[in-house]
Amino acid sequence: MKLAVLGAGAVGASVAELAPEYGHTVTALADSSSAVVDPDGVDVANALDRKESEGVVGDESPDAALSANYEVLVEATPTTLGDAEPGFGHVKAALERDRHVVLANKGPVAERYGDVRELERESEGTVLFEATVGGAMPVLSTIADFDAEHITAVRGVLNGTANFVLSRMAAEGLEYEHVLAEAQDLGVAEADPSFDVDGTDAALKCVIVANVLGDGEVTLEDATVEGIRDLPVSALELAREDGRTIRLIGEVDGDAVRVGPRLVPENAALAVTGTRNIVQLETTHAGVLNISGRGAGGPETASAIFADIGRLDG
Amino acid sequence: MKLAVLGAGAVGASVAELAPEYGHTVTALADSSSAVVDPDGVDVANALDRKESEGVVGDESPDAALSANYEVLVEATPTTLGDAEPGFGHVKAALERDRHVVLANKGPVAERYGDVRELERESEGTVLFEATVGGAMPVLSTIADFDAEHITAVRGVLNGTANFVLSRMAAEGLEYEHVLAEAQDLGVAEADPSFDVDGTDAALKCVIVANVLGDGEVTLEDATVEGIRDLPVSALELAREDGRTIRLIGEVDGDAVRVGPRLVPENAALAVTGTRNIVQLETTHAGVLNISGRGAGGPETASAIFADIGRLDG
Repeated sequence: MKLAVLGAGAVGASVAELAPEYGHTVTALADSSSAVVDPDGVDVANALDRKESEGVVGDESPDAALSANYEVLVEATPTTLGDAEPGFGHVKAALERDRHVVLANKGPVAERYGDVRELERESEGTVLFEATVGGAMPVLSTIADFDAEHITAVRGVLNGTANFVLSRMAAEGLEYEHVLAEAQDLGVAEADPSFDVDGTDAALKCVIVANVLGDGEVTLEDATVEGIRDLPVSALELAREDGRTIRLIGEVDGDAVRVGPRLVPENAALAVTGTRNIVQLETTHAGVLNISGRGAGGPETASAIFADIGRLDG
Repeated sequence: MKLAVLGAGAVGASVAELAPEYGHTVTALADSSSAVVDPDGVDVANALDRKESEGVVGDESPDAALSANYEVLVEATPTTLGDAEPGFGHVKAALERDRHVVLANKGPVAERYGDVRELERESEGTVLFEATVGGAMPVLSTIADFDAEHITAVRGVLNGTANFVLSRMAAEGLEYEHVLAEAQDLGVAEADPSFDVDGTDAALKCVIVANVLGDGEVTLEDATVEGIRDLPVSALELAREDGRTIRLIGEVDGDAVRVGPRLVPENAALAVTGTRNIVQLETTHAGVLNISGRGAGGPETASAIFADIGRLDG
């Protein structure tokens, strides 16, 4: 299919680079300040080289990508809160042209799920967003397979940065600030880690799941969120004496969304280590399903995006 | 949709009982010696009561179910090897009538995959078989989402009975025969446990995966299979001294299918305990995905069957 890719960060770049391997053509690629458009297929390597050397992917304005010739808009710009702009506007523009949208950007489906679904109802286009929850892990597709009404609760470790910090604190007996600095050196945590360590990112994923499972009116404001900044290493040590550890767990139970540090048994499925994520789905007839894998990363998230595009194509 | 359910064991009975909850109607239900057919919907509770008291589900011959008015044939008769009959004949009959087929019976897609696909090509019907690999776990749908060409290897614990026996042997330090007898008392192992403990069941699941990933010409004969009957508890004790344990692991790597006892780290994802199953998918761009859950059981397997029916319906 013909793809317009908005966002040229790790995810957008991976989608653009891998598209030919999945049988697709990138007809437009944009970052926040520029775009390159070619109905016969953008020279992706050249565009990404130019981004690295000159800070732009091409000579056109970002809007040129929105009006390009494409079948699927891949929205991989950074997640924003509140009105979820400019991501929401991109979704709207594509749906109004009866094009499909595949999201990696969590904003539109976390903060304005009802609006997105309303635009979708009036469009020939379909909106899919597997990549927004748990990167490569097939969370939303499994919920769709089971049917939302047969999923009674969802919980999991949904942020790799926070999980890396917690598992290093537990393993090394080091305080939060020390481990965070190490994670920043390794590129696992960003310079401003708030989004990850304060639980916002995990909460957005849970809000998306709650919207899929329920009436679609949940936003980040409805979530109860606590991060890991204030967790002393002594709490992890106490937990260990009891055969347990602490993980930043996100939970969806009906419309209720909670994220916070929770005690879990040290050898339990939820006690994944490092940047790994896990999601547990409680089902009506099939017990608990666990899905674990890489919850972030360019090619990993791109895999989920290509799975969505495959669904649109099939 | 209108379902004809062949097989009235744990899986067939669960499908028939749960069908209304998923919006479907059972128009025929058969066991090996009888059938009940009603275009307006079979009285499932009555048929299953009758099976319990009289040994038959109804007054008609099993063939009556095959010629009934249905949209999807649910094949949940016992798995057979070699020519995979009578399951294969059921699949053929449905496809020749341009009906869809959803399999829980592993025989047709493990032993005669090429034949099934050939019949499907000539039919308006589609064959789906998520339930044949790992019960409730979404293994085949995840492979389909990622596209077979982006899965490089698959391995896992695919038989709950064998895993129960191994994890009890390890935990209690008891020999195979003792734990097997206990498993039989609990209903976890059958009176003749060969299919499970000799690795046949796990191998069939791996053969199905190999067929999906490859050219579709693999059968049980191509698999290298070793069971757990001869495994002494001393081997598990030696493993534990080294921080490891032993699991019956099935592996698919290209066309090669191997099943046998393997050493795995005690805290590794593969070291699931009890009857739980796990599958690991190695992907080209998204690392390793783990999916674990209940690999068998009536309602669990029925959940996978309803997921397949939902795909046909969507």
